Amino acid sequence: MDFAVILAGGSGTRFWPKSRAARPKQFLAFGGAASLLEETFARTRRVAPPERTYVITAAAHVALARSLLPEVPAAQVIGEPAARDTAAAVGLATALVAARQPAATLLVCPADHRIAPSDRFVVAAQAAAALIAEVPRRLVIFGIPPTEPATGYGYIERGAPLGARAGLACFEVTRFHEKPERARAEEYLASGRFSWNAGLFAFRADAMRAELERQMPELARGVAAIAATAGSASFEATLAQLFPALPKQPIDRGVMEGALHRALVLPDYAWDDVGSFPALARAHAADAQGNVALGALVAHDARNCIVDAGGGLVALLGVEDLVVVHSDDVTLVCRKERAEEVKLLLEQVKRRRELDRHA
Amino acid sequence: MDFAVILAGGSGTRFWPKSRAARPKQFLAFGGAASLLEETFARTRRVAPPERTYVITAAAHVALARSLLPEVPAAQVIGEPAARDTAAAVGLATALVAARQPAATLLVCPADHRIAPSDRFVVAAQAAAALIAEVPRRLVIFGIPPTEPATGYGYIERGAPLGARAGLACFEVTRFHEKPERARAEEYLASGRFSWNAGLFAFRADAMRAELERQMPELARGVAAIAATAGSASFEATLAQLFPALPKQPIDRGVMEGALHRALVLPDYAWDDVGSFPALARAHAADAQGNVALGALVAHDARNCIVDAGGGLVALLGVEDLVVVHSDDVTLVCRKERAEEVKLLLEQVKRRRELDRHA
Repeated sequence: MDFAVILAGGSGTRFWPKSRAARPKQFLAFGGAASLLEETFARTRRVAPPERTYVITAAAHVALARSLLPEVPAAQVIGEPAARDTAAAVGLATALVAARQPAATLLVCPADHRIAPSDRFVVAAQAAAALIAEVPRRLVIFGIPPTEPATGYGYIERGAPLGARAGLACFEVTRFHEKPERARAEEYLASGRFSWNAGLFAFRADAMRAELERQMPELARGVAAIAATAGSASFEATLAQLFPALPKQPIDRGVMEGALHRALVLPDYAWDDVGSFPALARAHAADAQGNVALGALVAHDARNCIVDAGGGLVALLGVEDLVVVHSDDVTLVCRKERAEEVKLLLEQVKRRRELDRHA
Repeated sequence: MDFAVILAGGSGTRFWPKSRAARPKQFLAFGGAASLLEETFARTRRVAPPERTYVITAAAHVALARSLLPEVPAAQVIGEPAARDTAAAVGLATALVAARQPAATLLVCPADHRIAPSDRFVVAAQAAAALIAEVPRRLVIFGIPPTEPATGYGYIERGAPLGARAGLACFEVTRFHEKPERARAEEYLASGRFSWNAGLFAFRADAMRAELERQMPELARGVAAIAATAGSASFEATLAQLFPALPKQPIDRGVMEGALHRALVLPDYAWDDVGSFPALARAHAADAQGNVALGALVAHDARNCIVDAGGGLVALLGVEDLVVVHSDDVTLVCRKERAEEVKLLLEQVKRRRELDRHA
């Protein structure tokens, strides 16, 4: 690939209070020493060098992202003045790359997933490059083999096999499906024809630009106008003026669902979107009582709990099936099966002026 | 009363992680702004002035106690070089007072109980003073009317009524009983003849000295030798040398059980020994879901929990009947009915060298 684009705009509310408004999930370490953003960059730099890497994040996090990735040119760590979803972020990155090299290939990755081993990530990128080299207008999507009838991901339905590229199976794409109900997810899983959409794409800049102009012309005009000022003193002002008015759409719905030339590659790496504390726990070893702990835990008669102690200590006595997250200023205690509802608490915190420093 | 003696030597392990080795319960505030020690001093100074107040605490906490009670002469805030239980602490205070004024009356109070209103505390002290004025060798104990068959307190069995003093009922003492089993505690409660022993005593220095010489002569000799150096440069060295070798006994068992002249006064103040998180919760109002919170709480579908958020925030989701205690570096989550077992966790923490900074 010629360029890498890391999408680091998430707000990570499902990990509150570990994640915060000031430091969402992609800026945190989960078990490892490095943040998810740094881990992502460590992978993408094996595919495209730092000087051809773009990071799109929220304006509030630009300084943090630049400090974590000092090798990426500061001007290529771009702060969105408003959250406009992934079509705008991908569109802007595409326009910036197209202004430098219209026929360049781009690999677009979320900043907050875990992928291992990274060797296999490199191979998946090679497969995508091969698919694009054959049909330059192709938009390539990386599919994840579903392991459960998850309702939190979009699904990709595959069509005719295209054979292997770099040893990985490749397919036509029949359809994109939005996050399904449970029963529908079970059908998808049983059929064997569906992959999870993990938001990882590869394409040529001119191919994506053509699809944007066809399907989202207003967005295409906006990002082109912003990119036209790249490298000049007026870039930030133009970004601040035009970006917040861009159409707000996920790239899947805005572009991929209707794209004329698509292909699917099935990587063979292990993938984890670190989507919630229970999902995180599945990726870590449990102790003999079924407790999974990030950080220091002491427990007596405690079973099947998920603990994140931050830099401190969590002590459990006589409890089970809880998620317990300790940070310096906030502790969350929640029943495991209700971890998805943490947002409700966070909304309460944000509403109460005397508490919003904890958001 | 002529003198007040505040016993502030507790280690408060039942309140970990709110209480710490460096700051046990008597140095913490529970709902109010002041620490329990300061609250206790605010009461005793209505009975005896600061210059006739002694505070006995652990050597490690002398500086903290002096800083909280700047009006008490520093030399009267005494650090025990080793924990030798209450007979040694009371014996030392008695010897120090006896060296100044042998016939003086002393009021001895634990530093970590709550009593309200303090007007009624003053009246109880007046009743004790009256009992002592009539029979100078009397050791007077303050009894607490039991409200449940508690197994965590000693009980005082009352004998013949002595009539009222300062409007409060007074009695002979038949016996002291140690902490009972549950069934026995229920009998005590049903009989109506028992009071809890809350460790609050009043007596003349010469009376207590006589009982110590009779029942604990080794201890009496030791504290007399220490007190003989009071005010001299050798006091600290003598204390460090002799105090750790004193017999280790509670004052109840060592002296009160066998004392020849005793009386019981029944104060009419509200009393709370702040003995555990559930006990603490009983003294605070619950919200509509039965949750009691010290500090900031946000909750969704949480019921009958007890929360201490320290200076931070606790967030609960879908849980019930838990004690949750947040401090900067430690969170405890425990089933309410097992709060007494917190010590087990604390022992684990102390055993693990990498965690003992959290003890």
